[in-house]
Amino acid sequence: MKSKKSPAAGDNQKPSTREALLDATRELMVEENSTQVSFGDISQRSGINQALIRYHFGSKNGLLEALLERDAGSTFAALAELVASDIGAVEKLRRHIHGVIKIYHRFPYLNRLVGVLSADVSSETAHFISDRFARPLADAQRAILDQGIREGVFRSIDPMLFHFSLVGACDYLFHARASLSSVFGVDSISDDLRKAYADHICSILLESVRSHPQSAL
Amino acid sequence: MKSKKSPAAGDNQKPSTREALLDATRELMVEENSTQVSFGDISQRSGINQALIRYHFGSKNGLLEALLERDAGSTFAALAELVASDIGAVEKLRRHIHGVIKIYHRFPYLNRLVGVLSADVSSETAHFISDRFARPLADAQRAILDQGIREGVFRSIDPMLFHFSLVGACDYLFHARASLSSVFGVDSISDDLRKAYADHICSILLESVRSHPQSAL
Repeated sequence: MKSKKSPAAGDNQKPSTREALLDATRELMVEENSTQVSFGDISQRSGINQALIRYHFGSKNGLLEALLERDAGSTFAALAELVASDIGAVEKLRRHIHGVIKIYHRFPYLNRLVGVLSADVSSETAHFISDRFARPLADAQRAILDQGIREGVFRSIDPMLFHFSLVGACDYLFHARASLSSVFGVDSISDDLRKAYADHICSILLESVRSHPQSAL
Repeated sequence: MKSKKSPAAGDNQKPSTREALLDATRELMVEENSTQVSFGDISQRSGINQALIRYHFGSKNGLLEALLERDAGSTFAALAELVASDIGAVEKLRRHIHGVIKIYHRFPYLNRLVGVLSADVSSETAHFISDRFARPLADAQRAILDQGIREGVFRSIDPMLFHFSLVGACDYLFHARASLSSVFGVDSISDDLRKAYADHICSILLESVRSHPQSAL
């Protein structure tokens, strides 16, 4: 992904300007716990003129799409590989959930960014974001659920409802930093907490989707 | 709640100005699927001068806090009543989940608003929001979980992890309108879909938290 240059990138300087702008945007979003960062802030943080932000990304949406792509774009190849592998459905779902949570831990603004860029539901940006991010996730989950049914380990479950509950649950620990800190006294999300949360989500979702022939009436 | 007047409300006009401003803010947030609405937009929508927004609410945060309070403030009395009632823990949790989802269905921007107002984790606003909204939810859930353990119907589960997974899962269907529409072809959330989602979340969480003595090893 880092080799993906902007169309204008003809020398050695421009790709690093582009990366520096994306780095500054990411840092500000993490520090301010918000997706609302301005060109002015990004320019000040990176020391790069605002005109160059427009030159490299065209618009705020262009910059945010590029950030999403850099952060999460490569994970979909790994997800497709996981889905295509000959691992059992239970283990696939477990790995998928741990993978999603690892991404939200690393880029806690990611899901909010998807939301902000999709706010205007009928816009081209919203369609692009859905096609690029939500659809591959939903498709992968549906494939894993189908596999589990074929293997006889999962009951039939609505893949749409499953998708929203999985993504929402995975994301929210990283979204709700203020309540994590002020209600539960947890100021940063350690790797241990990240793993415990992933195990918790796995247990919730797997327990619910597993077929329990012994308890069927 | 509607009888709660602003300190400045001395005649019959002011409370309705206040309500009209809150109504306009809510409409814009729902229509634009975003919490980023400006004083200018609110003024234009309501036909009320921007100076009066400042007069009634002091600041943008003041306006947003008042909106949160009007939308969700009264639900906490109902939640406290539910927790204090002599209903069993399974049914309490079921009612709680349906209640949370009903609120997010009605006010789909609510949880994002909590996030935006809490972005600066150490700010007074963030503490106020956590104390007013996140803490009562988390406390109620902990009380229901404890009751379930006493009744022998729930296993022991981390109430913090449970809280974040419940709120995140309940909210996300209403947050991710763009993927709901573009990935799943669902353009509006009917009462039937709202109920199906609530049943789905109940099934996930209850299945996971119920003690299953027959499957214990």
